[in-house]
Amino acid sequence: MSSRIAHAGLRAKITSAEEAATFIKNGMNVGMSGFTGSGYPKVVSQALADQIEATHAAGDPFKIGVWTGASTGPELDGALAKADGIGFRLPYSSDPIARDKINRGEINYFDMHLSHVAQIAWEGFLGPLDTAVIEVAGITPEGDLIPSTSVGNNKTWLDQAKQIILEVNSWQNLQLDGMHDIYYGTALPPNRVPIPLIRPDDRIGQPHFRCDPAKVVAVVETDSPDRNLPFAAPDANAKAIAGHLLEFLKNEVKQGRLPPSLLPLQSGVGNVTNAVLAGLMDAPFENMTSFTEVIQDGMIDLLESGKLLMASATAFSLSPAMAERLNRDASWFRDKLILRPQEISNHPELVRRLGCIAMNGLIEADIYGAVNSTHVMGSKIQNGIGGSGDFARNAFVSIFMTPSTAKGGAISAIVPQVSHVDHIAQDVQVIVTEQGLADLRGLVPRQRAMLIIENCAHPDFRDALKDYYERALRGSFGQQSPSLLTEALSWHQRFVETGSMRP
Amino acid sequence: MSSRIAHAGLRAKITSAEEAATFIKNGMNVGMSGFTGSGYPKVVSQALADQIEATHAAGDPFKIGVWTGASTGPELDGALAKADGIGFRLPYSSDPIARDKINRGEINYFDMHLSHVAQIAWEGFLGPLDTAVIEVAGITPEGDLIPSTSVGNNKTWLDQAKQIILEVNSWQNLQLDGMHDIYYGTALPPNRVPIPLIRPDDRIGQPHFRCDPAKVVAVVETDSPDRNLPFAAPDANAKAIAGHLLEFLKNEVKQGRLPPSLLPLQSGVGNVTNAVLAGLMDAPFENMTSFTEVIQDGMIDLLESGKLLMASATAFSLSPAMAERLNRDASWFRDKLILRPQEISNHPELVRRLGCIAMNGLIEADIYGAVNSTHVMGSKIQNGIGGSGDFARNAFVSIFMTPSTAKGGAISAIVPQVSHVDHIAQDVQVIVTEQGLADLRGLVPRQRAMLIIENCAHPDFRDALKDYYERALRGSFGQQSPSLLTEALSWHQRFVETGSMRP
Repeated sequence: MSSRIAHAGLRAKITSAEEAATFIKNGMNVGMSGFTGSGYPKVVSQALADQIEATHAAGDPFKIGVWTGASTGPELDGALAKADGIGFRLPYSSDPIARDKINRGEINYFDMHLSHVAQIAWEGFLGPLDTAVIEVAGITPEGDLIPSTSVGNNKTWLDQAKQIILEVNSWQNLQLDGMHDIYYGTALPPNRVPIPLIRPDDRIGQPHFRCDPAKVVAVVETDSPDRNLPFAAPDANAKAIAGHLLEFLKNEVKQGRLPPSLLPLQSGVGNVTNAVLAGLMDAPFENMTSFTEVIQDGMIDLLESGKLLMASATAFSLSPAMAERLNRDASWFRDKLILRPQEISNHPELVRRLGCIAMNGLIEADIYGAVNSTHVMGSKIQNGIGGSGDFARNAFVSIFMTPSTAKGGAISAIVPQVSHVDHIAQDVQVIVTEQGLADLRGLVPRQRAMLIIENCAHPDFRDALKDYYERALRGSFGQQSPSLLTEALSWHQRFVETGSMRP
Repeated sequence: MSSRIAHAGLRAKITSAEEAATFIKNGMNVGMSGFTGSGYPKVVSQALADQIEATHAAGDPFKIGVWTGASTGPELDGALAKADGIGFRLPYSSDPIARDKINRGEINYFDMHLSHVAQIAWEGFLGPLDTAVIEVAGITPEGDLIPSTSVGNNKTWLDQAKQIILEVNSWQNLQLDGMHDIYYGTALPPNRVPIPLIRPDDRIGQPHFRCDPAKVVAVVETDSPDRNLPFAAPDANAKAIAGHLLEFLKNEVKQGRLPPSLLPLQSGVGNVTNAVLAGLMDAPFENMTSFTEVIQDGMIDLLESGKLLMASATAFSLSPAMAERLNRDASWFRDKLILRPQEISNHPELVRRLGCIAMNGLIEADIYGAVNSTHVMGSKIQNGIGGSGDFARNAFVSIFMTPSTAKGGAISAIVPQVSHVDHIAQDVQVIVTEQGLADLRGLVPRQRAMLIIENCAHPDFRDALKDYYERALRGSFGQQSPSLLTEALSWHQRFVETGSMRP
């Protein structure tokens, strides 16, 4: 008991989750740890949700602002959303209960670039950060905090919050201590300096968070797993997408446009990117590196195989089986993994300098290459932009991947005009579906349209796209990016009305 | 004669514009100097246009790819477009003849982020750069080139081109020699390092371009003015916009969110930004700096007044009267002005580090804050995205400004949904029209809609916007960013059909 809390003063603050949660009051802004289902508080958030429900039952208001790294788990977003306890949420959410409430207008959801979060919290226009609730793996004798399986914005929350609640989670493997790299060199302008990171494996910070013990009001002990969900095995579509992409990368190496070890890989989370990572196991690239947001199963496989030398990210997002493997060989992995604050993992300066190969998913792309990553049918948010904008604009090669249809073929991922834009065509260099790959670099909109329709659209929608485009070539107001204003969003409207984009 | 060409070997290559132009052949990619009407070649381009016309008259094909810094002048874009000599154009164009041909689909126009141009030229997927045509102010005895009134991508064109044609323009003031800062430290990944610029006035390079004399095939002497156009005096709308913006900046200083000297200013070109700069003459900010793309009249006034300590950019864009003032006191201004390659002036790493205050114009914004900077009615390109994306995403405060209506009130600059997106809502923090200012920071889409309609829309369109938004709140598929798919672009369609967005 309490063996992970080596600081006497903080050990004296050990209390129950219920007691700790009472420090959080209606209207507070609360900065919580957590990124992609790892390293989020598990018990204080649940106890807080219970207290919010009780308060509501008594007829009193109780809503808070929830700031995190990114998505969390059911004990946090799920429980608080269910309790109607979230008034304002940033910067990313993927919880199904929260999503429903956001899309009913019941939660104010601020969907933002993940690299910008720390900066705007410092700026102060969101109001003060009242409380930080941070999961850690342990506390050193000096009172420094051993980070957990995500770093996210924890450094900023700990620095900015008026009061701090710590969850010390003994489920987390202490052997990962030393893996983190917490950089304290950021500042607001005009006091910013170059970030001294030149290679993905550079360590520029320290392994632990600083923490003012006087601000800690409660320490809670837990032994709870992260929300580690099994990945589905890649299906035929994912494998086809991976195949096209690997051919493209091989050709780039052959043409001398990429080095044989590629450039640092960034990949979004999901089955398609996991299929790409699986494909890299058999691809002729050696000594690869990764500078990304999240370390998922495929990266661990690549590390073990020796194809990938190291991976830098801000969080894990592993299946339970892979989390077990990581825990079993934690000391071996520790030297090959670096978790950083998300202002560093996603920093435009670093993404541009390193020349990342960015691989992200999408909801829909249009025939000119603009990408919608967030809003289904233009208005209903799925998750959020996350770090995709940080990477896509600054990457050396910006790749977006998707199956060409969704909802059993009712939705085409390639549409005349996207119903919402997250990535402008200038930031989308390659689009890949199971049908093929469109290399859009250097192409003007009319050329992009032909290539995307031919190479990426599903055959069931290809003729309709061609028909739209050819009529736009005749009827458009201008011919730089031909469009028919009355039809540009008609496929989405048809889906809303009929449940299918098919005519 | 020839006094500006101090290198004997290059002096031996002096020839006529007509002779020089013969080195350029059908199908070549030609990298030309020029940015916003300054520093572009004036006579070789015109002679080339004549030769293209003669070739076409003889029934033979003759088109080239034209790569520049940004827009140029009538002797280049205008003459070549008129001659049907441009097959492919990047990265920016504002020439009216070229615009017409682009919008008829007769010129392939690659509209791109200005900070990315040098990188993609290095990468090679656009094909080799066959020829560089560069205006310079002079040639040193060592064969180095004294830059002219814009730097743009000249460094890259000189390094990459197989053959080089130089125009030595004696109209340019040699006293500006020493003002330029040509940084040779960029590279392709994985060989990139931090750019060692921490303050806007840091000099990190050298004053002259390197140039391999063996690649120079022709040197042409000219005495021709830049395309310096008079600015219209700010009208009432521009003054009102400036007034709202200055109030905002004053309040940011008062709230402690900006220092009293502000942060380095970036401003697009035009009457509205010139009005803002004029307003800064009487505002309580001292010791300001500018880190921007283009130095326009208002910046020179601010420098002379002492309110602005220095300005860094990649080019001038001055009125004839202001160009004369600059020439008269060139040595005084030289120490306060720095012209850099546009990969540096617009570099995301530097814009983010310095924390620029970005002030850019727009064509239209929607009620959620997305901005269209390029495509009129979604398909007809006006100029291009230019550097606005480089600055808007990475700025500390990203401001977009516009009169609330255009075309004598027929067009509303605030629309239900923009017909094309260049800047996603996440990159648009403040919108200003003559009606007022909307500070969108920290607001979710539904809050942004109310504020933009109330504060920024013209009263003539305000009720229609409210009506749309309120019906979208009831009829939208999702409520994160409520929209009516059948009406979202209907204002644009009405304009195309009737010449007015008014119902």
